[in-house]
Amino acid sequence: MWTFRTPGIPDELFSQSEAVPGPTKEEIRVITISKARLREGSVVFDVGCGTGGLTVEAAIQVGSKGKVYAIDKNPEAIKLTKINVEKFNLQETVSVKQGIAPDLLTELPSADSVLLGGSRYLPQVLEITFEKLKSGGRVVVNAILIETAFTAIEVMKKLGFQNIDVVEVAISKAKTVPSGTMMISRNPIKIISATKP
Amino acid sequence: MWTFRTPGIPDELFSQSEAVPGPTKEEIRVITISKARLREGSVVFDVGCGTGGLTVEAAIQVGSKGKVYAIDKNPEAIKLTKINVEKFNLQETVSVKQGIAPDLLTELPSADSVLLGGSRYLPQVLEITFEKLKSGGRVVVNAILIETAFTAIEVMKKLGFQNIDVVEVAISKAKTVPSGTMMISRNPIKIISATKP
Amino acid sequence: MWTFRTPGIPDELFSQSEAVPGPTKEEIRVITISKARLREGSVVFDVGCGTGGLTVEAAIQVGSKGKVYAIDKNPEAIKLTKINVEKFNLQETVSVKQGIAPDLLTELPSADSVLLGGSRYLPQVLEITFEKLKSGGRVVVNAILIETAFTAIEVMKKLGFQNIDVVEVAISKAKTVPSGTMMISRNPIKIISATKP
Amino acid sequence: MWTFRTPGIPDELFSQSEAVPGPTKEEIRVITISKARLREGSVVFDVGCGTGGLTVEAAIQVGSKGKVYAIDKNPEAIKLTKINVEKFNLQETVSVKQGIAPDLLTELPSADSVLLGGSRYLPQVLEITFEKLKSGGRVVVNAILIETAFTAIEVMKKLGFQNIDVVEVAISKAKTVPSGTMMISRNPIKIISATKP
Repeated sequence: MWTFRTPGIPDELFSQSEAVPGPTKEEIRVITISKARLREGSVVFDVGCGTGGLTVEAAIQVGSKGKVYAIDKNPEAIKLTKINVEKFNLQETVSVKQGIAPDLLTELPSADSVLLGGSRYLPQVLEITFEKLKSGGRVVVNAILIETAFTAIEVMKKLGFQNIDVVEVAISKAKTVPSGTMMISRNPIKIISATKP
Repeated sequence: MWTFRTPGIPDELFSQSEAVPGPTKEEIRVITISKARLREGSVVFDVGCGTGGLTVEAAIQVGSKGKVYAIDKNPEAIKLTKINVEKFNLQETVSVKQGIAPDLLTELPSADSVLLGGSRYLPQVLEITFEKLKSGGRVVVNAILIETAFTAIEVMKKLGFQNIDVVEVAISKAKTVPSGTMMISRNPIKIISATKP
Repeated sequence: MWTFRTPGIPDELFSQSEAVPGPTKEEIRVITISKARLREGSVVFDVGCGTGGLTVEAAIQVGSKGKVYAIDKNPEAIKLTKINVEKFNLQETVSVKQGIAPDLLTELPSADSVLLGGSRYLPQVLEITFEKLKSGGRVVVNAILIETAFTAIEVMKKLGFQNIDVVEVAISKAKTVPSGTMMISRNPIKIISATKP
Repeated sequence: MWTFRTPGIPDELFSQSEAVPGPTKEEIRVITISKARLREGSVVFDVGCGTGGLTVEAAIQVGSKGKVYAIDKNPEAIKLTKINVEKFNLQETVSVKQGIAPDLLTELPSADSVLLGGSRYLPQVLEITFEKLKSGGRVVVNAILIETAFTAIEVMKKLGFQNIDVVEVAISKAKTVPSGTMMISRNPIKIISATKP
């Protein structure tokens, strides 16, 4: 169904649920995946996978030689991510696990890239991420809350992450109404990425 | 040197010249490439290639079985695009040609995706693009000027392009100054994409 | 109740109705009123007055020696504007009239400033505005639709308006949610203003 | 020369100097002044007055019965603010003082509104502001740095300010270039305002 190599699956191709946030909007997904710098065969953690949008995009990039571990504490998110993983035929590449991030992450193998959303446990999750990442590995945090962005930057600095990059992305989409074309704004998202030395 | 599969090469990895605009900034390049929906083996035209940023990203995506035709009227842009194509070792995939877009495009084979910037000849270039695109092929226009966005939308509608998508992307980047962190805005860019039926 | 001289009445102080758009958000109202450059005693037209937000702000600025003519084709808007004019005790200054803009405007005296939103009749309304404005008078168009912005700029140029200024204003407001602070974006608005020579 | 009652003096009407930042851009000045909620006769502090843009706007609003105290540690800013105050003929209303904010503020009478930019002493300056403000008085902080916004919000909460309002304003201005119209973005500014109970 989706046969393209480039990221950027249209939002409406994902199964969605009112009980689960997401999917991360197409344009944000694309920049997030690009900041994760994936290769065929890469190992990726998607922490707080929600609808599974980033999980699916990452799995397409790393291919069947790679691995994506999708984690969420919400059982509804786990169910939905599994549905989307099957929809895009990526069961071989993706492993979906329900639970609390700090607990689950410690059991995983080392990673090339880690995708994080907001979390009560962000400082702790970033610490484990730093340990789990291979040298040269990438962390990418998508922050909707000002506090998440702040904590991410501060903790990344303390842990010794390098090349910390903070980008705010504000997207508006044209919508055709009877009288013309309106630009509809989405809330801005801060994408904070860095490299483990 | 750049071994990743995902688009999003940092701007500073491209050779640059004051005489040539670009490269298209990393985040805009990434969204543009995603809207072009590339496969391994795709044929891409990059019209108004400038520094060659989009040319290089597209060439990495389509691989050695694909083809990217990079076109610019400015000889300095041609020189610079060639330098960047060599830097990323993509000579096999990319063909760089100097000349006026409407003239050069008619000589090219049919395409899967066409990337366009602003041009005096935009309506004519869009018309030839429509002819050259395979069914299901994609056109992506990056518009800095309001007039370019308008012309693109209007002409795409007339020609029969489908699923016209208009997205405005406003990026700010954090910059560390002695007293703290400033968000530095870049000018907004409209990305207009569509599918040939 | 509102005893301040500066514009910027909080949105929630206006009576509102689901049947009528508005009020124009506080920050947009403030910039709009500033671009209108009002004096005590100025005569202002508010064309498409909706909830009456701009009408009330303009009336406070021009004072009891000035005059604001508020016009809308929607009887519900007329009712609501009257309620808000009374709420802020500005009945002496404001005259509210229901009808089609081109018809009503021709009957009004000359103006110092004219505030316009989108309208099917925008070119015609701008033409009458040009005639009605005193030399040095100001026109301000608030455009939500891309087409409105375009038409406004083009028609203003043709009519001979001077110092045409186009500003896009994108406002986000912090909202406290249980887990922190989100920035909520509002749709961008283009404010096009100019001077009659 | 500037005879209007509404705020929003065009930037180019202020004398400027490369040694002094400012003036605060027109649209930001207008929203800042509106959030300060001034009356004829109000007493205003402009802390870090720079070019004097906000000083001049505030002085016009409060009139000759009011008072604006403009403070800056930079002697060049003091000189420039004085030039602009004279240019707009507001010497009676404005008192300009060179020195460190915490020192100067303690000597001033109580205020209706206080305008603050970034400052090393922000927490201390906010504390003195809280003491000096009359009940119902307003504080407005213009923050370019993320850290300034954060500190302002946090300290305002601690001190007991009420109705804390955080608004991010992103302005783009149309610029005509030979090939059309570009939107030029300015860096976003956060405006944080609150009321002393």
